[in-house]
Amino acid sequence: MLRLKSPGHDRFFQSPTLEATFGGAELNVATSLSNLGLNAAYVTALPENEVAEAVIGELKRFGVDTDFIKRQGERLGTYYLEAGASLRPSRVIYDRAHSSLCEANKGDFNWREIFEGAAWFHTTGITPAISQSAADLTLDAMETAQEMGLTVSLDLNYRGKLWKYGKDVTDVMPELVKHADIMIAGREDCQKCLGVDVDVPTIEDISSLDHFGALSEKMLDVYPNLNIVAITLRQSISSDYHRWSSCLRDNDGFYSTDIFEVNNIVDRVGAGDGFAAGLIYGLNNYDNNKKALDFAVCCAAS
Amino acid sequence: MLRLKSPGHDRFFQSPTLEATFGGAELNVATSLSNLGLNAAYVTALPENEVAEAVIGELKRFGVDTDFIKRQGERLGTYYLEAGASLRPSRVIYDRAHSSLCEANKGDFNWREIFEGAAWFHTTGITPAISQSAADLTLDAMETAQEMGLTVSLDLNYRGKLWKYGKDVTDVMPELVKHADIMIAGREDCQKCLGVDVDVPTIEDISSLDHFGALSEKMLDVYPNLNIVAITLRQSISSDYHRWSSCLRDNDGFYSTDIFEVNNIVDRVGAGDGFAAGLIYGLNNYDNNKKALDFAVCCAAS
Amino acid sequence: MLRLKSPGHDRFFQSPTLEATFGGAELNVATSLSNLGLNAAYVTALPENEVAEAVIGELKRFGVDTDFIKRQGERLGTYYLEAGASLRPSRVIYDRAHSSLCEANKGDFNWREIFEGAAWFHTTGITPAISQSAADLTLDAMETAQEMGLTVSLDLNYRGKLWKYGKDVTDVMPELVKHADIMIAGREDCQKCLGVDVDVPTIEDISSLDHFGALSEKMLDVYPNLNIVAITLRQSISSDYHRWSSCLRDNDGFYSTDIFEVNNIVDRVGAGDGFAAGLIYGLNNYDNNKKALDFAVCCAAS
Amino acid sequence: MLRLKSPGHDRFFQSPTLEATFGGAELNVATSLSNLGLNAAYVTALPENEVAEAVIGELKRFGVDTDFIKRQGERLGTYYLEAGASLRPSRVIYDRAHSSLCEANKGDFNWREIFEGAAWFHTTGITPAISQSAADLTLDAMETAQEMGLTVSLDLNYRGKLWKYGKDVTDVMPELVKHADIMIAGREDCQKCLGVDVDVPTIEDISSLDHFGALSEKMLDVYPNLNIVAITLRQSISSDYHRWSSCLRDNDGFYSTDIFEVNNIVDRVGAGDGFAAGLIYGLNNYDNNKKALDFAVCCAAS
Amino acid sequence: MLRLKSPGHDRFFQSPTLEATFGGAELNVATSLSNLGLNAAYVTALPENEVAEAVIGELKRFGVDTDFIKRQGERLGTYYLEAGASLRPSRVIYDRAHSSLCEANKGDFNWREIFEGAAWFHTTGITPAISQSAADLTLDAMETAQEMGLTVSLDLNYRGKLWKYGKDVTDVMPELVKHADIMIAGREDCQKCLGVDVDVPTIEDISSLDHFGALSEKMLDVYPNLNIVAITLRQSISSDYHRWSSCLRDNDGFYSTDIFEVNNIVDRVGAGDGFAAGLIYGLNNYDNNKKALDFAVCCAAS
Amino acid sequence: MLRLKSPGHDRFFQSPTLEATFGGAELNVATSLSNLGLNAAYVTALPENEVAEAVIGELKRFGVDTDFIKRQGERLGTYYLEAGASLRPSRVIYDRAHSSLCEANKGDFNWREIFEGAAWFHTTGITPAISQSAADLTLDAMETAQEMGLTVSLDLNYRGKLWKYGKDVTDVMPELVKHADIMIAGREDCQKCLGVDVDVPTIEDISSLDHFGALSEKMLDVYPNLNIVAITLRQSISSDYHRWSSCLRDNDGFYSTDIFEVNNIVDRVGAGDGFAAGLIYGLNNYDNNKKALDFAVCCAAS
Repeated sequence: MLRLKSPGHDRFFQSPTLEATFGGAELNVATSLSNLGLNAAYVTALPENEVAEAVIGELKRFGVDTDFIKRQGERLGTYYLEAGASLRPSRVIYDRAHSSLCEANKGDFNWREIFEGAAWFHTTGITPAISQSAADLTLDAMETAQEMGLTVSLDLNYRGKLWKYGKDVTDVMPELVKHADIMIAGREDCQKCLGVDVDVPTIEDISSLDHFGALSEKMLDVYPNLNIVAITLRQSISSDYHRWSSCLRDNDGFYSTDIFEVNNIVDRVGAGDGFAAGLIYGLNNYDNNKKALDFAVCCAAS
Repeated sequence: MLRLKSPGHDRFFQSPTLEATFGGAELNVATSLSNLGLNAAYVTALPENEVAEAVIGELKRFGVDTDFIKRQGERLGTYYLEAGASLRPSRVIYDRAHSSLCEANKGDFNWREIFEGAAWFHTTGITPAISQSAADLTLDAMETAQEMGLTVSLDLNYRGKLWKYGKDVTDVMPELVKHADIMIAGREDCQKCLGVDVDVPTIEDISSLDHFGALSEKMLDVYPNLNIVAITLRQSISSDYHRWSSCLRDNDGFYSTDIFEVNNIVDRVGAGDGFAAGLIYGLNNYDNNKKALDFAVCCAAS
Repeated sequence: MLRLKSPGHDRFFQSPTLEATFGGAELNVATSLSNLGLNAAYVTALPENEVAEAVIGELKRFGVDTDFIKRQGERLGTYYLEAGASLRPSRVIYDRAHSSLCEANKGDFNWREIFEGAAWFHTTGITPAISQSAADLTLDAMETAQEMGLTVSLDLNYRGKLWKYGKDVTDVMPELVKHADIMIAGREDCQKCLGVDVDVPTIEDISSLDHFGALSEKMLDVYPNLNIVAITLRQSISSDYHRWSSCLRDNDGFYSTDIFEVNNIVDRVGAGDGFAAGLIYGLNNYDNNKKALDFAVCCAAS
Repeated sequence: MLRLKSPGHDRFFQSPTLEATFGGAELNVATSLSNLGLNAAYVTALPENEVAEAVIGELKRFGVDTDFIKRQGERLGTYYLEAGASLRPSRVIYDRAHSSLCEANKGDFNWREIFEGAAWFHTTGITPAISQSAADLTLDAMETAQEMGLTVSLDLNYRGKLWKYGKDVTDVMPELVKHADIMIAGREDCQKCLGVDVDVPTIEDISSLDHFGALSEKMLDVYPNLNIVAITLRQSISSDYHRWSSCLRDNDGFYSTDIFEVNNIVDRVGAGDGFAAGLIYGLNNYDNNKKALDFAVCCAAS
Repeated sequence: MLRLKSPGHDRFFQSPTLEATFGGAELNVATSLSNLGLNAAYVTALPENEVAEAVIGELKRFGVDTDFIKRQGERLGTYYLEAGASLRPSRVIYDRAHSSLCEANKGDFNWREIFEGAAWFHTTGITPAISQSAADLTLDAMETAQEMGLTVSLDLNYRGKLWKYGKDVTDVMPELVKHADIMIAGREDCQKCLGVDVDVPTIEDISSLDHFGALSEKMLDVYPNLNIVAITLRQSISSDYHRWSSCLRDNDGFYSTDIFEVNNIVDRVGAGDGFAAGLIYGLNNYDNNKKALDFAVCCAAS
Repeated sequence: MLRLKSPGHDRFFQSPTLEATFGGAELNVATSLSNLGLNAAYVTALPENEVAEAVIGELKRFGVDTDFIKRQGERLGTYYLEAGASLRPSRVIYDRAHSSLCEANKGDFNWREIFEGAAWFHTTGITPAISQSAADLTLDAMETAQEMGLTVSLDLNYRGKLWKYGKDVTDVMPELVKHADIMIAGREDCQKCLGVDVDVPTIEDISSLDHFGALSEKMLDVYPNLNIVAITLRQSISSDYHRWSSCLRDNDGFYSTDIFEVNNIVDRVGAGDGFAAGLIYGLNNYDNNKKALDFAVCCAAS
């Protein structure tokens, strides 16, 4: 996606300048993994124009493989961002309707070919949120990956502003989770996406993790295909001061990390993607899941 | 429309900055007329978001009446612009599919109410080029304006990159011209839009106007509803050096202006809109059409 | 006024760029009220030049009525601003001598005409601080407003750097307060402007409000014309971390708000004006004054 | 003076940024002379604030002696500049009323002390144009310089927008010319400032210099105190394409330079000041006046 | 190399901003070839730091293979650029002493491995100009390429400011030319680099090409290993208006292109590199050398 | 040195812009002293190019005497800076090898002439860290200054990334300290530079100063030539939130300052130089060393 941001803390169009960068949850993860030294390919649909070529050039700059990107459709999804200040929250305006990915169909990607030689497939709950065909596409990819023996990780990544094409998030996500090995979720994602009724504290106090221990245990029960459930915990003190923590349950136990005070946040969008990338890297490179989790939370906070 | 332009002569995304301004043929004419001291209202459809509010704020800044703008639909039409340099031409990427205006329907605007108390309606060939419903809308507006006794001006403004919804330009524009009093056209617009076969020099040599005399005469014959045909003549020497001239035929005769050398062009988009605004202003304020034409070409070249 | 600010935290003229925006206490209030959805007109004097036209365009962008602005005099008041950092305080250089407003005279504005159909008049202690004629003008406006039955609000807004034309602030402000219904004041404004000797804590500890209860009570005694006294309380922890609170006394009682921690302040100038606008909005739209006060302090802190 | 310019070819306040630099005819000459390696001091009045300190710092950066600058008065003269484009001319808004120099008086500068050890005094027709006291000050300086044996050069520099304090330019400038050794003038300056009725071509065709030969001869007759009359000839083809030439008459003859085509003009303000500095440098360093003139026109065109 | 340029036409350090881009003759050719769709690898030495990583990222963005870049040495060569305006010429300050490439040695690159599977090697006269070891390296590469059957092209690219390590250009370049198949030269490069005494017009009038016919013929005689000699002809009318042409001699004849007027030059550095890339592309893709030459001069002028 | 910094918190080359300023420990001290009103000269070696001239211009702007700067050598030392954010630390890339100062020799500066009429010489441990010749030069300067009766201050300023020319810091600095009257050191500088084994807390808790009392006492014992040892104490809470304190021992006692909370740090580089300048100013202007120390720490924190 193209991200168009007002400079600094400016309101939308306060000055006639926008900062144009490329982002999106899966793109961020691919770029981070490549920066960490892994071979990463990014699979999406992009239109046949120079804006899309700029996205591809940016991915190449970071060494991400762009060979599987389909050039089709009308437009690149776009969103506008205005950074908050003091009590004024950040604002996002989505302009992603009718994007190439939004209108891509299941048959447009030959997943068998794409996954040839790959060991891991990561996707998020954002793609299935934008259209029925994108949801179908995601399920197809996950099923194929699973069949071919790839490790499949899914970041629930619930965004209430999306999910407008008629399906409820709980109609779609539980089916997807059944095809994942690793699930990443924020504090409320499990309730929102999976309809789980375990109680988590409504006040965002990330110091007590007991509830999350129970929540993650329940997840492994309900979705026995999952090997790992990782939960990110973010407490927003102000628009540029957060506290970050995380916990993880695998079949051997429940682990949590320290709490990190993160102030002077340059750009909060993307911390969760950094966590996902760090976790994938860690699970591939460290000998225990606790270490992978510690690495993941550091990536999120940097 | 939102116009996103690379700074200076930069290529697309060479730097992470875009200059964001608002434009579009009819908007430019409305703003110019307001700057010239006339009361102008701008009628369009815009989505319910802050980007659209910025458009409206900008119109208000110039004193344009925005009360008739409908807030509906999904998005604001957008285009990307890269300014040419030397032999490298300027480039435009349209991202206007599914814009609010594109998807607006005939019934969305109550033209009788909108035209209440107005004396002039100006529109262009760009709106009917983007969708069938926008073409229907334009015809409806022109018919109503004509019935209510407004002067109706139409700038043919042919853009080959548009007209993708199935209809050919010659299926649509001749019918619209029948509801206009004043037609503005570029050198090739009459051939392209109206299928007229009068010969005009293929090499853009604006020094000889004989052909344009014949062309405009033919137009008044074919479309007897027209009182005035004004033709803009632009010769592009290089990306920032043009020559501008124009001619006009009314029922009394054929007039032409001097040729203006226009170098150091800051922004070529919009010169034709300046011409249209200048002509409308001139026809309302000067006692003869030759004077109005001279004023119009000065507005185009400033 | 034209505000010329060094970019970011730069010292004056460290780079050859200045950020030019338009401000001033009354202008900020008018703009905020218009943003909140009220009909607001801004009355001032501005010179006949393009700088002034830019101010007017900016007001129009926000929907503020500019029809009563007089175009006369030599210049627009200007000030230079350098944002502080760490222990280095912000700096302001005023260049507002001989501004159009400064040299405007009582007869220049026909208040009866201006107030026709209006319900509220808001002014501040800044205008009477710049010249004798501006003070006379302010008194004339307040008297007329009162006679015509408008609600009159006055923000004392004491600025020691102004008040250079010979009169002491205490010679002028008490008379003005006599023509107001609502008075807004900062912690020390009452002492400075009105010579009141009630003790308020010298250390800016906004947690204890007892003194302000006494202070506001005394104000209602001394100025029986006042219905409401609102006091803003700001504690400056550092150049970009403040604490904000406020209290209000009306004939029914004394109310105070929570304390808001406001960090990452983008631009501290204008928080007081946001309070005034919020209070005016709240008093017009909420059924009790406590609610209006809560709304006002939120506007100040956003 | 502080010069506040819109970026590039932007209209005033099109973006919220202004480029702030320091200029003014005499300041430009002082800076240029210092750059050329001569010892130059700049004498003016500036207020006691940080804006003025920035001017002084900038002068020091170029090695100009700032010891004789008086710190007094209210403000620094300011002007706003918008660069033209195509047929749109550049625009200047002066905001120099009540500047420190404008309100400085004859007694404020001890010229005997200032000129101690100096060999040359250069001034222009801009200072006497802003106020009676500044005109008196200029005359006082020129008289003292002459008495002390300095060479005195005066650039007529006629600006019609100034001269608003009651005196006509022809009431003031002839008296000043009587105290100069060298006079620099643009094509029309002699007629405008000195009321000379020699005919010069109204169309700015700088290719024929005959008229200027006659004009300069007449000047030496009328003002026998003058040793040199230098005339700058500038033909403006477009806002960024000029032609420059010049001629000079001394007691030995009449000389002229080649015509220089000057395109891609970054900033036209200051070319005349470059000419003056080049001439002063040339007259001090070359053995004949023709060579000095050639050097001067090169400085103007660079 | 890192290129640090003052913004627009600013003088060095007039503002505290520099535009940082990466360039250099061979890098420009590699990037252009990759843009044109050929597989290109760029071979150089770069230090182990983030500045070098940014160069590599930028190359990757354009699809250039960076696998053969050696990470060694102390620094990246840098140069400062100030764009000229009117009569003021552009200025370059080289800061490339002790760069990684400058201090690289013959043994540092295994050319046999690098050239494995390649069809073409292009180099320029800039590398041998910076140090003895870089000259040795270049010769080694050319010899190996020739032995392995690659086509070898050499752009003489004479820069007088370089060549400071003790050797004269004529001591080094003739030997290199003996190992090339295709030589590219500017008007004076043959005289300067190869000591050829054929007369070429001293005034840069590119309209007459006879001399260049003779010059190129002589080159094929003296260096029978050459198949093609291409000469670029550039006439600088002003700092942003050039005229470009070129001619080429092969064993079948002598060809020349039209003259292109190139105004509004955004950045003149790199036009020659565009020519070289265009020629390499053309010779690989077109069936005759004249067509390749036409393509090359268009690339130079775009 | 030239400092090239990414804008705001951008990563290196994230955008194509660098902020170019001039810095370096001794330059910062000279500029600060001049700002405080003392006469300061800056002595260094700079190449003969426009980059160096910009440094000199900048020094002159602040009134620093630049007459003793030698123009010799190849290049100006450069470093690249990227400001940290949250947990991401700031990064510095040095590119100062082969700078003019680095390659200057003892005989290049005539210290007797330079120190003529001077009262104070300040230098730092950075210069002796860059090359053997620079270390020799520093010793020569300190010896001469001592002989001529100047007060000599030395800021140890240990930077581990430098010291690459073969000598260990402890081979060089102790000898230099023997020629100083006043030594300034950070918490660990004494251990690192002088090999002192007094224990200081490894966790940077600046609240307890006992260890520093012992450390400074030992310094006066070991180096009886020293009259004053000043220690700066900085605790880095986050990349833009520090705590600052300092202590000082002279022959009469041990003093310490309050702790200053310094948040919203615009630019942390240079705080230590501000301390040094403040201390020198204070020792010259206040009647006791405690007062000088208080002033110094305020300068550091502003």
